[in-house]
Amino acid sequence: MNLNIREFSSNSDGFRAELESLLAWDSVSDAGVQKAVADIVEQVRLKGNDAVIEFTNRFDRRRVASSAELEISREELALAKDRVSAELVTSLEAAAKRVHDYHERQKQPSWQYQENDGTVLGQKVTPLDRVGVYVPGGKAAYPSSVLMNVMPAKVAGVGEIIMVVPTPDGLVSDIVLAAAYIAGVDRVFTIGGAQAVAALAYGTETIPKVDKIVGPGNIYVATAKKMVFGVVGIDMIAGPSEILVVCDGKTDPDWIAMDLFSQAEHDEDAQSILISPDLDFIKDVKASMERLIESQTRKEIIKASLEGRGAFIHVENMDEAMDIANIVAAEHLELSIDEPEKWVEKIRHAGAIFMGRHTPEALGDYCAGPNHVLPTSGTARFSSPLGVYDFQKRSSLIYCSPEGASELAKIASPLARGESLEAHAMSAEYRILKDS
Amino acid sequence: MNLNIREFSSNSDGFRAELESLLAWDSVSDAGVQKAVADIVEQVRLKGNDAVIEFTNRFDRRRVASSAELEISREELALAKDRVSAELVTSLEAAAKRVHDYHERQKQPSWQYQENDGTVLGQKVTPLDRVGVYVPGGKAAYPSSVLMNVMPAKVAGVGEIIMVVPTPDGLVSDIVLAAAYIAGVDRVFTIGGAQAVAALAYGTETIPKVDKIVGPGNIYVATAKKMVFGVVGIDMIAGPSEILVVCDGKTDPDWIAMDLFSQAEHDEDAQSILISPDLDFIKDVKASMERLIESQTRKEIIKASLEGRGAFIHVENMDEAMDIANIVAAEHLELSIDEPEKWVEKIRHAGAIFMGRHTPEALGDYCAGPNHVLPTSGTARFSSPLGVYDFQKRSSLIYCSPEGASELAKIASPLARGESLEAHAMSAEYRILKDS
Repeated sequence: MNLNIREFSSNSDGFRAELESLLAWDSVSDAGVQKAVADIVEQVRLKGNDAVIEFTNRFDRRRVASSAELEISREELALAKDRVSAELVTSLEAAAKRVHDYHERQKQPSWQYQENDGTVLGQKVTPLDRVGVYVPGGKAAYPSSVLMNVMPAKVAGVGEIIMVVPTPDGLVSDIVLAAAYIAGVDRVFTIGGAQAVAALAYGTETIPKVDKIVGPGNIYVATAKKMVFGVVGIDMIAGPSEILVVCDGKTDPDWIAMDLFSQAEHDEDAQSILISPDLDFIKDVKASMERLIESQTRKEIIKASLEGRGAFIHVENMDEAMDIANIVAAEHLELSIDEPEKWVEKIRHAGAIFMGRHTPEALGDYCAGPNHVLPTSGTARFSSPLGVYDFQKRSSLIYCSPEGASELAKIASPLARGESLEAHAMSAEYRILKDS
Repeated sequence: MNLNIREFSSNSDGFRAELESLLAWDSVSDAGVQKAVADIVEQVRLKGNDAVIEFTNRFDRRRVASSAELEISREELALAKDRVSAELVTSLEAAAKRVHDYHERQKQPSWQYQENDGTVLGQKVTPLDRVGVYVPGGKAAYPSSVLMNVMPAKVAGVGEIIMVVPTPDGLVSDIVLAAAYIAGVDRVFTIGGAQAVAALAYGTETIPKVDKIVGPGNIYVATAKKMVFGVVGIDMIAGPSEILVVCDGKTDPDWIAMDLFSQAEHDEDAQSILISPDLDFIKDVKASMERLIESQTRKEIIKASLEGRGAFIHVENMDEAMDIANIVAAEHLELSIDEPEKWVEKIRHAGAIFMGRHTPEALGDYCAGPNHVLPTSGTARFSSPLGVYDFQKRSSLIYCSPEGASELAKIASPLARGESLEAHAMSAEYRILKDS
């Protein structure tokens, strides 16, 4: 199949403008969606279960009569796991263990230190009490997403994890439920959409109010999450998924072609970019793609994604490739090159970095250990993969000795008066020792 | 002065409802503000400097003709510092040093580890390239806010720190500029409002585009920050400031009265709550307040705040006080009690915890070391003080050995096929070694 993929060179005129137009992504939020979501959120906040049941029956074409029907018990999760093939269960368990072990290294301990005058300063780290995990339902069943969202919360020590998953027409994926069982989700409710987000944010008679909501969803879910932000915490709002492959031309072109496909097959908006200093290699990869796409089950999506948002970028050398990688700040950056451990030093911005020829993104998506929830659309410039740190929070500790307080008060008092905050100054001055 | 402050008891009927009504805070965003801000942001995005100058002249009543006039040089900052009293400069420098030293402990190093088969996993931690710090101008000049927002970014290693501060009628606070000099701000522009936020988010011919915007501002600034979130990172949107003092009745009532005043003097919406198991002590504190308020320069604000949103809560015992503190999840929690190091173990949610009778919030506001930018309105349930971690981000590292990749591919492949993502499966399978 012929593929018409954008191809340009870093030494062409207007390269920077071309790069920016390639990366541009406008996530416009539709006024109609805003209005619909605001209404659903408000109904759920005011009417609780009644509204949740009404919206669930309407949008998911169900016939729920009482809120008890919305919950799937741990026993039912275990039964779902029994219905899944042994090979899949083994893979889920192996993936869960590796994700758990990696995230264990992200745990942050509380700390404190004492100053010479006896004053103690510190930082107390605590897990969130209760977290909601949104899992998309219906035809797209992603058990890996269950593991990646739940495991860091488990490792952080979150008290209770509530999963919501819509079951349109009553259909639910056994693999998703098996993943929930393996990950250790505490309670599962078969609700979705903006009504599920609102139920988690405000609580209903049946659905417990949570402190933070994570997990991917459609535009209604994303809009609802933004709307309840502040009432609860939320994770990042993800844009389309992207990969940037940097290859020196010495990896099998079929491997690189398939790595690019693995991103493109997600959806038409996904972005796959190859950067190489080797023009012949770019041609080889394109030939591999045109040959390999024929046998792909998702070839229409792959073609649309590659032709709409994909690109080959020819660069002068590897230094230039690293500079471009820092501009792109890709969600997934694959360094399919010699000595990636040397070149990675130059990378300042990326969600996850896949190093060497044997590290395709797909391994990270499922089971290498690091999280697959990553900052998209260049937001790696200022944000991080989902991690244990998203499920812990910090409280500052200050415990002044009488002597320490007295000295600090002498610093604070003029500053407070400089800000015309006299009560602050007096509150501090009360702690100045008489004989000091 | 007689003070009419809400007073209730944890053993009264409807206590929980009363507590929730006390804490309720609705930060409604006005449609008019939304519209005005959206227009300003769009104009700045499209027209750059021209729009920034136009809005600055209009809103700040200035006569700026060229963008060069908007910048204050490092030399001018040094001159401003020379105009500030030696006592204040000494206090600013002492505060900056203490804040710096505390935040040094928050730095997170990169890490990696090697598995038995040679696969390396890790987390690379990098600072943000460029950060914008918003500093309110005009009558409310808060140099402490400059230190608290800039120092963690400096400690994180942020490449360039851009400060914006509006100068209505051309007026600017020397103390604020001195704080900027001491904190090590790289560039200062005299712009404010939504136009400053938009300029930092999108960049103009003169104002560099940043990766994250932090710092407090009015409703226009807060609305603009929310609007550009995603294009850049932002810090928390703060609600009114609050303090919860838990006292066992053995601290000087004047001290507690003044600690409560120090919060109330911020603004009418600020919240000061005292919890004690000692009813007589509550009476004593009230008497202290009614006596001490007379001499307060900001007594009208203090009175409005205490009568509007303040409260005395009588509890049965200290355990109950800790339970209520966890429900409130206060921005500032003062444990003015015996053995605070024992009781703090029970606190799960608070922005900053001030322990003992010699640790008034005011010391933390200025110079104890921890940050004074803290989660408000109960958001300490899921968020943290501003810290070095807000100016660093993480990238996952995955570097598979051929053997490691081969084993991981055998786990990933069935999972990918279980999700109907065949290209993912094939990309992984290419890395399975022939003889394995």
